Order: sequence, then C-alpha cells, then structure tokens
Amino acid sequence: MSGRAGRWRVAVDVMGGDRAPGAPVAGGLEAMRRWPVEILWVGPEAQVAAELRRQVGGSRVPGRIVPASQVIEPGDPPVAALRRKPDSSIVVGIRLVRDGEADAFVSAGSTGALMAAGKLLLGTLPGIARPALAAVLPTLDGRGFLMLDLGASAEADAEQLVHYAVMGVVYAREVLGRPAPRVALLNIGSEAGKGNRLYREAHERLARSGLDFAGNVEARELFAGPADVVVCDGFTGNVALKAMEGVGEACWKLLKAEVARRPLARLAAGLLRPVLRRVRRQLDYGEYGAALFLGLDGLVFKCHGSSDPRAIANGIGAAVRACQGRLLHRIGESIGKEDGEALGRGR
Amino acid sequence: MSGRAGRWRVAVDVMGGDRAPGAPVAGGLEAMRRWPVEILWVGPEAQVAAELRRQVGGSRVPGRIVPASQVIEPGDPPVAALRRKPDSSIVVGIRLVRDGEADAFVSAGSTGALMAAGKLLLGTLPGIARPALAAVLPTLDGRGFLMLDLGASAEADAEQLVHYAVMGVVYAREVLGRPAPRVALLNIGSEAGKGNRLYREAHERLARSGLDFAGNVEARELFAGPADVVVCDGFTGNVALKAMEGVGEACWKLLKAEVARRPLARLAAGLLRPVLRRVRRQLDYGEYGAALFLGLDGLVFKCHGSSDPRAIANGIGAAVRACQGRLLHRIGESIGKEDGEALGRGR
Repeated sequence: MSGRAGRWRVAVDVMGGDRAPGAPVAGGLEAMRRWPVEILWVGPEAQVAAELRRQVGGSRVPGRIVPASQVIEPGDPPVAALRRKPDSSIVVGIRLVRDGEADAFVSAGSTGALMAAGKLLLGTLPGIARPALAAVLPTLDGRGFLMLDLGASAEADAEQLVHYAVMGVVYAREVLGRPAPRVALLNIGSEAGKGNRLYREAHERLARSGLDFAGNVEARELFAGPADVVVCDGFTGNVALKAMEGVGEACWKLLKAEVARRPLARLAAGLLRPVLRRVRRQLDYGEYGAALFLGLDGLVFKCHGSSDPRAIANGIGAAVRACQGRLLHRIGESIGKEDGEALGRGR
Repeated sequence: MSGRAGRWRVAVDVMGGDRAPGAPVAGGLEAMRRWPVEILWVGPEAQVAAELRRQVGGSRVPGRIVPASQVIEPGDPPVAALRRKPDSSIVVGIRLVRDGEADAFVSAGSTGALMAAGKLLLGTLPGIARPALAAVLPTLDGRGFLMLDLGASAEADAEQLVHYAVMGVVYAREVLGRPAPRVALLNIGSEAGKGNRLYREAHERLARSGLDFAGNVEARELFAGPADVVVCDGFTGNVALKAMEGVGEACWKLLKAEVARRPLARLAAGLLRPVLRRVRRQLDYGEYGAALFLGLDGLVFKCHGSSDPRAIANGIGAAVRACQGRLLHRIGESIGKEDGEALGRGR
C-alpha cells in the first residue's frame, strides 16, 4: 500500500488537538525529514495552506491538502458529531484510510470521535469483536510498555482480553522492536485466582495460550515495567490511566502552590526547574508516541490533545513503523492462533 | 457499648504494620491523650508490656494487654493465615469486637487478613451482601473525600454500589462531619450512559435514589474533590488506588535520581525538601486516617502498613468518631431506605 517512490502515505489531522493547526503542521514537516513518508494534510484548505506556507516560508506546499471543512470539538458527543459533521477532519481522514488513499491516519482530536468513526467506517479485523486503545506507558527505566485497552470498549470478555494480548504482542514486536514480548494481566493481586470473574478467566486463558505470559500485575507495579504488554478491559484501563494522570497533575499543582508560598523555595524551584520538567516528561505517556486503536481494519493513531510538534511527529513515526511491520497483516495471521507458532514465542 | 467511665474501648493491633510495635504503641498513647478512649493492646504479652514500659517510662502499663501469641505477616495468604494462626493479633482483635469487649479494632496489618477475619467472625450488617473498603482520599483543597470500595470485594452489582453509596453517606455525615454529603459514581466519562453495564445501571439507580447524587466522575477529577463520597466496585477502586500510589512513588524516585545527577539541583533539592515532604504528605491518603471495612457488623479500621504514630492515632480517632456517631446503627437504619428520609438529604 506504499505510495509514490516507496513512501508511506500518512494522513494528518491538521485541526486536532489544543495546538492545532500549528503543532500538527510542524509535526508533519518534522516527520517528513525523519521518515520516508508523504503527508496528506486534512483540514480546511485555505487555513491549512496558510499555515503550511507560514511554516515552510515559501509558496510551494509540501505534500497534498485534503479538504475537510468541519472540525469536531473535544466537547462534541462523538456519535452525534459524526452525523452532524460528515466533512470533519476526523471523518475525512479515516475515510482516506478506508478508501486506501492513506496508509494511516494520525490525529490529536477527540478520542471518542476517532473511535466512533473508526468503528463505523473501518470496522474491525476478522475475528476481533471489539477494538482496544493501546498506548506505550512510561517505566522508570525509560523502556515503556504497551497497555491496552485504555478505553476503546467499555465491556470485554475473557476471549477479548486474550485477543488484546495477541494484538499487543504483535505491536510490541513489529512496532516497538521487542523480539519476544512478554504479556501481563492487570489485576488486584499477583497470585493466580485474584480478581473478579472476568480476570480469573482471562488469567486461565492466557496461562493456557502460547503467549509468553508473566501472570498478574498490580497497577502499582506498572512503572517498574513488569512486561512488554499489559492487558485489561477498557473500563479498568481508562480508570487507571486517568487516575495516573490525575495524580501527576495534582502533584505539580501542589508543588507550585507550596513553592509560591516560600521565597527560598521559589529560588530553589528555579534551580530545579529543568529537573522537574524532565521528570514530568518521563512520566508523560504523550512523549512515548501516539495511542493506537488496535483491532480496527485500518491504522488510526491518536496523539495526546496537548501534543507538541515532537509528539505529533512521534505519532507519525509509529504509523510508519506499523506500515513497515505490516501490523494489520500480522495481527490477522495471529488471531485465533493464540496457541500456535504465529505468535513468535521464543523467536 | 461504651466502656469504663464513658470511654470507648478500642483494640489496637500492636503487631500490625512495618513500624510495629513502636508506632502502634506510640499512636495508642497519643490517642489516649486526645480522645476519651481506653486502649486494649493486642499482641504477645511480654513484648507489648516491654514496649509500653519503654515508651511510658514507668512500670505501670496504661490500658489493658490482651495476649495474642501469633503475627500474620503481610505475605501470608489471608484465609490460610487465619486457620494457621488462630491466636494472631488480627484474629484476637476482631474477636474482641465480635464479643463486645471492644467497640472497634484498629490495625496496620494485612488488609486481606483483616477482611477475611472480618467477614468470617463479624459477618455483614443485615441487608448488606458484601463489605467495602472505604478510605478518605486527598483533594487539592485538603478537604478529602470518602472513596469505596477500594478492594474489599472483587465483584459487585448495581444494588451493592447503591449500598456503598448509602454507607458512605452515613460515614461522611457521622464521622467526617459533612452535614449533607454528595455522592458521585466513578466512571469513564461524565455524561449519563457512560461506562459498562454495571456502571450504567448503578448510575440509573443512584439517580432514582433519595441520595444527593452528583453523577459520574472521572478518576482524573478526583483530586478536585467533586463529591463527599465516590463509589465504585472493589476491582476498579483497587486498581485506581494502586495506580495513584504507583505514580506517586515513580514521581519521587525519578525526582531523586535526577537530583542526584546534578550538583546544583542537589543544593536546590535541599532547600525544597520541606516543600516536597509537605506535597507528599498532602497526597498520602494514610495521613487522612484509616480505611474502614464498611458493611461489616463491627468496626474494623485498617491503617496504612507504613503508618507512623500519628497515622495510628488518627485511625483510633476515626474509630472514636464512628462510635460516637453510632455509625453501624445509622447504616442499619438507612439500608433499604435509599429513597427515604433516613439519608438525611438536605438536613
């Protein structure tokens, strides 16, 4: 599906995220310098062209603009927004993937709208009942791990959790470059038999599968990087992710408030600022590249809403690696063969 | 059920927690100075007496020692531990509550063992199918809110979530002193209709109840203090709590590592230490008093495993307020009357 001259064609949502259109355009331009990629800029034509000219500093526009006159706002109810805004950048971008005009779509727009449009326009891969939102979360050693489902599907059964594991393993191998990915199950205790019915059954199935299964892992241990892939249902994963974000934010807010109250601390905080910034960045999963809707029959990457150009570029980089690794094809080969050789255990 | 001279009799697990027996003894002594309370010290007689004498500095021991020759370690599998260690401080302490010799039991020992012993020896209140672990979690404004279930029961249905809400409201009113507690439901989106089947049904029931229901709240918003009581099932609550703890710990570890690498930052960190300590304390739910197994037919408070004397004393303080507020009696009055006046809405 590669485009002109062996380049992957990645559609970029120019209107997605808090820093649109500046950050998506800058990120796309950065990606063009780093990877063999052709960008399809999706957004209102005049606005996109103006931003491109402003950043490139010339009159010739790199890549191709695909017009989309509407924008889905973060507050729009996803499903209704798709109906009311059929010419939005999200719908147009995903349609490009569906129609084979783009190899992947990258957006910092509304997760719910991307999810809804993805399900509606692309559908799921054969054998996959529900897609999962997967993202690389940070670990203390900087390696990171893939966690899914972070909230694409509110319900899941044990078979679906096994499918998430399979898809995660393929992603970890083909995109993150982990030769023999280990899988863990998020749970409320490390021993087998812990958790509710769903998690006890998922544990049994994963233990019986051909996957390299590391057993249960508690949310507290995630930062130690207990596995390459951690699976859970979308409700639990979304709560865990938002709990982590909440603590991070609370931590910085309190730190700021406390520092502001003390002159000496204010001086010290100035000296510490680069340290604090680095710590914050290490804990920010947005830095580790985009999230991906695994299980959709098409590549849709979701960058953090506050993505800067580097985060957008990283999202495009992940899309390129997914194309190069023939991710969807490999997932198709592996689903339903959890006990077989297709999972590459020990390869 | 008050003891001698109008004092509440609180049994304290002298062997529970990382800092036993020093912290439980010091915490108990502090509580005796602050509240009308008589302490029953539960643990190996000679060891408890020696620690008491060491801390009091005399030969007369304040309160009464209730001998318990065994200790359940944090790593012991809870249910097996109860069988193998029938004379452990946890079993003896909860038996004191069951037999009416103590009004409450406070322990920094194994949550699982406390839970198992509580269910086995005390059972649940009439109408309550499963108990819930409730704790006051921190908010940015320092008020805090009660969250439950944090992991007492891995399964719950919508009716049980409503019962958690009722018990939480009674606790918030009688123990935390909130005159008209508001309840929120933890969920993955703020609108009604969000979440999985369990949470959609719980939302409907809570909206129909006589409770002051604030709707759904996302884990990310918890630190803003969206309600006095936040309910969820024990699996989700436990994952959320541990995710928050994990980020907190990761945050401090990274900060330390980064600071150690830079001499100037090391100096600044010295100046900032009191600030960092204060922030850490504000985010530490252990500071806000003990967790409680709500729904058991008896008062069992669980302090954090790393509790210092102040945290233990706060746990005893919460026990005293629960006794004074006749918590169990009030819960009994309110269960099954979620649509009635017993909930004190608008009182």
